[in-house]
Amino acid sequence: MGKVNLRGKFSSFSDQWAPKVIAEMNDYQFKLVKIEGEFVWHQHDDTDEAFIVIEGNMKIEFEDGLVELSEGEMYVVPRGVRHKPCADSECKVMLVEPRGVVNTGEADSGLTAPNDDWA
Amino acid sequence: MGKVNLRGKFSSFSDQWAPKVIAEMNDYQFKLVKIEGEFVWHQHDDTDEAFIVIEGNMKIEFEDGLVELSEGEMYVVPRGVRHKPCADSECKVMLVEPRGVVNTGEADSGLTAPNDDWA
Repeated sequence: MGKVNLRGKFSSFSDQWAPKVIAEMNDYQFKLVKIEGEFVWHQHDDTDEAFIVIEGNMKIEFEDGLVELSEGEMYVVPRGVRHKPCADSECKVMLVEPRGVVNTGEADSGLTAPNDDWA
Repeated sequence: MGKVNLRGKFSSFSDQWAPKVIAEMNDYQFKLVKIEGEFVWHQHDDTDEAFIVIEGNMKIEFEDGLVELSEGEMYVVPRGVRHKPCADSECKVMLVEPRGVVNTGEADSGLTAPNDDWA
């Protein structure tokens, strides 16, 4: 692969809650996603999941609390922890997680999306 | 762990070429490093290595070419590929790689540094 310009990649798609795979490292993937509104409650039983905010603001709700993230901030959701990402206005996020992780985890949801190859 | 503010973490240290572990995801680590000047030629035989430029400009030299990265750009160096990071002026970089990877790879160098826990 060549280098990846994150803002350039973000400008190349407009759908929300649909992660795009922009790079791979071993059996891990870097994904970009635009989020707005509320996602579904879900968890990933087999893996942690890293959120890095590239532009905007987002929240991750947990059953016992809330994390607010702004541009240049990151958080790693531990495996097995139920969470719900949300954003009042569109937020651009990079995810890092093992290849094949599904955005909605174990949840049965109309928001389940493929990991589109966007490299 | 709590959330991590990348620029805040960068402001908390000044040494160069000494990666600080700021978050972990499964058996992977996110590290911040300030680089300036030329590093040593080296390779990591067992893993790819992701570079994400948070502030500034850097280059990664390869035996057959060069990649130039600016703020908001990333590159994944494949395992086994000899490379030499460098920066004309200080550049702030996030690395993502498996736990325990040494900055100088197989090279015998005075620049070999521990992965300080900075979480």
